[in-house]
Amino acid sequence: VHDLTEYKRILLLTEGRLGVFTSKTAAVLLRYRHQDIVGVLDSGCAGRKLSELIPWAPERPIVPDIAGALELEPDALFVGIHPTGGALPAELREHLQAALEAGIDLVSGLHTLLGEDDELSTLAQESGARIIDLRRPPTQRRVATGRARTTGCRRILTVGTDCNVGKMVTALELARAGQRRGLDARFLATGQTGMMVSGRGVAVDAVVSDFAAGAIEELVLDAADADLCVVEGQGSIGHPGFSGVALAILHGACPDAMILVHHAGRTHNKSAPREPLPPLRAQWSAYEQAANLLHPARIVGVALNTHEVSKSVVQSEKKRIEEEFQVPVANPLADGCESLFAAALEPNY
Amino acid sequence: VHDLTEYKRILLLTEGRLGVFTSKTAAVLLRYRHQDIVGVLDSGCAGRKLSELIPWAPERPIVPDIAGALELEPDALFVGIHPTGGALPAELREHLQAALEAGIDLVSGLHTLLGEDDELSTLAQESGARIIDLRRPPTQRRVATGRARTTGCRRILTVGTDCNVGKMVTALELARAGQRRGLDARFLATGQTGMMVSGRGVAVDAVVSDFAAGAIEELVLDAADADLCVVEGQGSIGHPGFSGVALAILHGACPDAMILVHHAGRTHNKSAPREPLPPLRAQWSAYEQAANLLHPARIVGVALNTHEVSKSVVQSEKKRIEEEFQVPVANPLADGCESLFAAALEPNY
Repeated sequence: VHDLTEYKRILLLTEGRLGVFTSKTAAVLLRYRHQDIVGVLDSGCAGRKLSELIPWAPERPIVPDIAGALELEPDALFVGIHPTGGALPAELREHLQAALEAGIDLVSGLHTLLGEDDELSTLAQESGARIIDLRRPPTQRRVATGRARTTGCRRILTVGTDCNVGKMVTALELARAGQRRGLDARFLATGQTGMMVSGRGVAVDAVVSDFAAGAIEELVLDAADADLCVVEGQGSIGHPGFSGVALAILHGACPDAMILVHHAGRTHNKSAPREPLPPLRAQWSAYEQAANLLHPARIVGVALNTHEVSKSVVQSEKKRIEEEFQVPVANPLADGCESLFAAALEPNY
Repeated sequence: VHDLTEYKRILLLTEGRLGVFTSKTAAVLLRYRHQDIVGVLDSGCAGRKLSELIPWAPERPIVPDIAGALELEPDALFVGIHPTGGALPAELREHLQAALEAGIDLVSGLHTLLGEDDELSTLAQESGARIIDLRRPPTQRRVATGRARTTGCRRILTVGTDCNVGKMVTALELARAGQRRGLDARFLATGQTGMMVSGRGVAVDAVVSDFAAGAIEELVLDAADADLCVVEGQGSIGHPGFSGVALAILHGACPDAMILVHHAGRTHNKSAPREPLPPLRAQWSAYEQAANLLHPARIVGVALNTHEVSKSVVQSEKKRIEEEFQVPVANPLADGCESLFAAALEPNY
């Protein structure tokens, strides 16, 4: 477990991809950790106004290179993009090298581990800068035994009908709703972007499968003294590739309540567009069946992602779900999370 | 993927643990691959009659050390035990070293990778012997997309109500039942012991969780030209530590039919004896719900493990399950697998 909350002067690296969807990690950090961000490194956008590219971003300089960033006195460079494919693009490598030479720590969620790159690790040794790879599997390997159930803190899990629907943002907003009520409500990150926001957690998708639930269980046990924790779900119980990870999180966390996150009107798997998503009702039921094998929990509300969906589709989808499932439905970013949060506090059954 | 079927003169290493339950891997190999086994290496049992220790074993010499095994002309030493804990016990190391010095290949399913041991890998280099670690994660990393559904071969999966109930043996027996009918029926191994029996497969519990279903999907696609394949399940959908692996296999394989393997009368998790198992009906339903998210499949029969269960408990459990679920129930080793196999060939719905 890494504690990244100590970084207070973060430079975000988005080289050539700065934008709400092209640099998702950076965009999320600009929403949830803006107070710790001193600037953005992107040669293609240098000098432009940040808020024109990320509407919710505070005004911070966009610089073309590390030399131009030094007067911001960054204490770490966070990689804010996720280029597809394994190898490290040349234009990123240049910035990473320059950062290490200047003694600036690197924090990365890339599948390619920067610390295993000979060139980068040599530079880090020379300058004393650290390389933190969030996808490096934890050295502790434990098999989950269902102990999350024994914690006194209330456990809420966001689950999804697909990848990329907003499980992390919903979990962050639910934790904030708890904090606004004066509760010790903690967001528990299970992916690299969530870890960058909250400072710690585990990138569960990099853990060997026998120990994935165990890693989640450890996270929850570490938060046992909180009033409640909101665990960030991953994947979906109906996703051919990632259902195992989704279930490992479900059984590692043994939630008291689940919030289902759904992209209004999405009918097909985002990463495999010819693949229809299983019907909402079937997924709902599969989540509850699976959860209840270990601990009683229902889906108590639906977080509706309305991005690029017409108002009429959103309205009809909201009404349909409310009527069919008799739970509150809300878009966390537009409507707030109060109704979902309140539902998650009600007794399990 | 390793092809271990080329070894025809296998020496089994069980040092100090030879027995039906203490050397489970060796015992399984003596049942399913006896024609390729030339002897057993176990200094504590040397000279004893093998069939007194493993009732179904053919008569093969038990030798005290590698020197005593050389006249058997072994082409590989298979590690037939799984000592708990990470480190390699000293008494095993001695035999492994002697085998490598004699130019004999090592095949191991231990969590500790023998090929990463400096001493052993140096010896292997010197003598030209190979070290094959079955738990070394595959280098190919693919995310499953549900393509198993597109194969023409019929897919049968054994699923369990707990670990250690007999999913592998049931799968092996089902494949044999198919072969007896003249079908090209293949057993697909998902654990190290099954790999030793069938020569290939993947140790799914050693695969990073994002790629676990993908590894299973590859196995099934490779068997697409068979009439049918029987996939060995792992863990259980209700096991706190291993449910993710169980679901990854389910969605990686997209079975047409599932056979549920249950240990008659078992009420508590074998590895966590204070943990009650979820009720049979709840697990049944969770398996079918989860499977049907991607592909229609029912549990069409129950393989009943009757080890150390009284006749009366077996009888009542069999009757109860048959009446409640209206499927055939059989102990594959005692009753044969014909009824289960026939059920698995019926149309999905």
